[in-house]
Amino acid sequence: MADRIIKVGLLGLGTVGGGVARLLLEQRDLLTQRLGARLELARAVDLDAKLAAELDLPAGVFSTDAGAVLDDPAIDIVVELIGGLKPAKDFALRAIGNGKHVATANKALLANHGAEIFAAARHKRVGVAFEASVAGGIPLIKALREGLAANRVTRVLGILNGTCNYILSRMTSEGAEFGAVLKDAQKLGYAEADPTFDVEGIDTAHKLAIVAALVSGQHPRLSDIPTQGISQLTPLDIQLAREFGYRIKLLALCRQQDGLCEARVHPALVPQSHLMASVEGPFNAVHLTGDWVDEVMLYGRGAGRRPTASAVAADLMDLARDILCGCGGRVPGLGVAGDGGQPLELAPLERVSCQYYFRFTAQDQPGVLAAISRVLGEHRISIEAVIQKGRQDQGAVPIVMLTHEAREADVQKALAVIDHLPVIAEPTMLIRKA
Amino acid sequence: MADRIIKVGLLGLGTVGGGVARLLLEQRDLLTQRLGARLELARAVDLDAKLAAELDLPAGVFSTDAGAVLDDPAIDIVVELIGGLKPAKDFALRAIGNGKHVATANKALLANHGAEIFAAARHKRVGVAFEASVAGGIPLIKALREGLAANRVTRVLGILNGTCNYILSRMTSEGAEFGAVLKDAQKLGYAEADPTFDVEGIDTAHKLAIVAALVSGQHPRLSDIPTQGISQLTPLDIQLAREFGYRIKLLALCRQQDGLCEARVHPALVPQSHLMASVEGPFNAVHLTGDWVDEVMLYGRGAGRRPTASAVAADLMDLARDILCGCGGRVPGLGVAGDGGQPLELAPLERVSCQYYFRFTAQDQPGVLAAISRVLGEHRISIEAVIQKGRQDQGAVPIVMLTHEAREADVQKALAVIDHLPVIAEPTMLIRKA
Repeated sequence: MADRIIKVGLLGLGTVGGGVARLLLEQRDLLTQRLGARLELARAVDLDAKLAAELDLPAGVFSTDAGAVLDDPAIDIVVELIGGLKPAKDFALRAIGNGKHVATANKALLANHGAEIFAAARHKRVGVAFEASVAGGIPLIKALREGLAANRVTRVLGILNGTCNYILSRMTSEGAEFGAVLKDAQKLGYAEADPTFDVEGIDTAHKLAIVAALVSGQHPRLSDIPTQGISQLTPLDIQLAREFGYRIKLLALCRQQDGLCEARVHPALVPQSHLMASVEGPFNAVHLTGDWVDEVMLYGRGAGRRPTASAVAADLMDLARDILCGCGGRVPGLGVAGDGGQPLELAPLERVSCQYYFRFTAQDQPGVLAAISRVLGEHRISIEAVIQKGRQDQGAVPIVMLTHEAREADVQKALAVIDHLPVIAEPTMLIRKA
Repeated sequence: MADRIIKVGLLGLGTVGGGVARLLLEQRDLLTQRLGARLELARAVDLDAKLAAELDLPAGVFSTDAGAVLDDPAIDIVVELIGGLKPAKDFALRAIGNGKHVATANKALLANHGAEIFAAARHKRVGVAFEASVAGGIPLIKALREGLAANRVTRVLGILNGTCNYILSRMTSEGAEFGAVLKDAQKLGYAEADPTFDVEGIDTAHKLAIVAALVSGQHPRLSDIPTQGISQLTPLDIQLAREFGYRIKLLALCRQQDGLCEARVHPALVPQSHLMASVEGPFNAVHLTGDWVDEVMLYGRGAGRRPTASAVAADLMDLARDILCGCGGRVPGLGVAGDGGQPLELAPLERVSCQYYFRFTAQDQPGVLAAISRVLGEHRISIEAVIQKGRQDQGAVPIVMLTHEAREADVQKALAVIDHLPVIAEPTMLIRKA
């Protein structure tokens, strides 16, 4: 069987694509030994010919023509690593249409067009693998889709963006401002020149869309996922949260209960004793709760050339095993037979219930605490703990509260009232508890 | 396809077997939806008929005759959950011989007879799945065999025995003695009436044998794994280790480097900042290092009816997908095509190099530290840190050292000399660093 060759065509030779090319060359013997067949890098395509030279590709492998991969009948598996929606979507559908299996790390593609791509793959009985699309090297998709296949997953907490976690870790350890740490992260290569996609939570929302789809068996609409990033967080909030016993992490949250599914991305309080609070720097982690398995946490590198290439290559091994068995698409896209169907209806944010951290900025005068508390009480929000700090420079003081579980709709109404009180100097900072 | 039925025969209705039976009944619709076929509990066998009544099995499912599962041509998958070597081994081989796929949680069976069982399965082209054999509900086997299939795994650190971790956690948080906590653990059901198997590291060694086989692609001999448990640990060592910045955990360690493979079970110092140090109570965790993925950690419940049933059921889903595709044994036992072959040669303990914690118990008199240090120096062991405590009741004092990396062979020779010095009152306590 080791004579059998599975031909891989690679689209995109950037950070991840270059990593996959090198992995297939450097780990060739190991992969052959495990697979009992050869996984051959038959063709690698990029518009930039310099990349091919840097990667030391074997003669004849490099091409600038995507068609040389997509339309060559000899190619068994297409690896889409160009990212973005265009032309990635067309390429993926063309590969599938030509009966090829596809591996991709493209979370934007799957978050936006997963239903269409999986349906096409089902129709052609080919596999679409996407381990590298969420949490980099961590075998999360496999754990969700196969390892926990006997569970209804009731809750997911994910630290899915290394840039944000790196920035928050440094803001926490150094008491530094967001802007200053971001600049440093950019210098060190942990953040892009335009960091919006990462720091505003959009990348995390793409990944959460994929996770929510796997958990529920239906594709959510990306626009239904409430998404808030970390750019508004201050060292003061991080410090005050710590005084209550919490760390602040940018979380992807998904909850499934009583037929309702919630999915949202925002900074969240995580108890210091929870393992997720100890996930530092650029690392990712996902904490899952299943109805049979109880808690599972997976931790590792969520980005980077080598860890992401490891995930893509695991997909290639899976797809190759399917090809050798003659059973393409053995595990369906969402792990559900005949998946797709209706989009997932997510509960709107107003229906969420959780505990809240509020930081009010108030004039330092008598009766302020009473005024705030009264409004909260009128909206069925009860207070678990309060910290009131001494006067700041401008005569305004922070009053910080941790609430008992409350409803988001009530909270939004209460804050609208409170932020119009004459004693309130600035809009209130709200952070939800995980 | 949902009309297709995969028939499961269950051997053993104890804690785990009963859990699997209940899971197959309670999660039936979910499993059917995911699989696109029915996973039917066709027969469940135990010598104790009372168990069947407690589990509320459907009529006609229970039997006291293993042959009703092993020899019935209608049964597709046999789940072996009786544990131990006899008759589990014969049952597994008989099921395989009859062309049935097998799922098992039996670590003792695989650690002792894995090579024979996997060879038989390869010959008959059936699958043997064993996710539940190591780390309970954590999808570790799948991560190692598939998720990290493109990696050479260079290091594994495992907390694989919940009983030991529970006892050590309480010894650490309460400063309590081993014996007292063990008694309490027995009362609470975290430890067996005869705890030897757990607290002496034997259970962990069985699991490590399986992990080392997956990492290397060859089966080790169980007797080649140096194994030491936690019964000799004292609250004093836990306290002193903490002063050096470490927690003590019972670890399964596996290292692969330069063609040498090490596997050993013993209490080990884990830096307090390492995530593994925060794994508390009955939880398990495995920290893996791969040459491409870098670090991955998996965490969850390593035992218990529901988490273990979750792992067995994931195996059943995998085997059922293989059956539906007509590709039995799609992933070979050790994830290596044509695995088996020569047993794995483990490096003997004497060849290990690591850092060491020594607690010497010495007479409180001048020159002791000099005498110890001289012997260590003569054996190429250099000291990183020393703590010398005040005099104890009996006139003996503990002198505690943390060494730089040293060779086990040198360490054993040095301790043999030191423990014969007239100033040394008790045998020296040695704990290796992870």
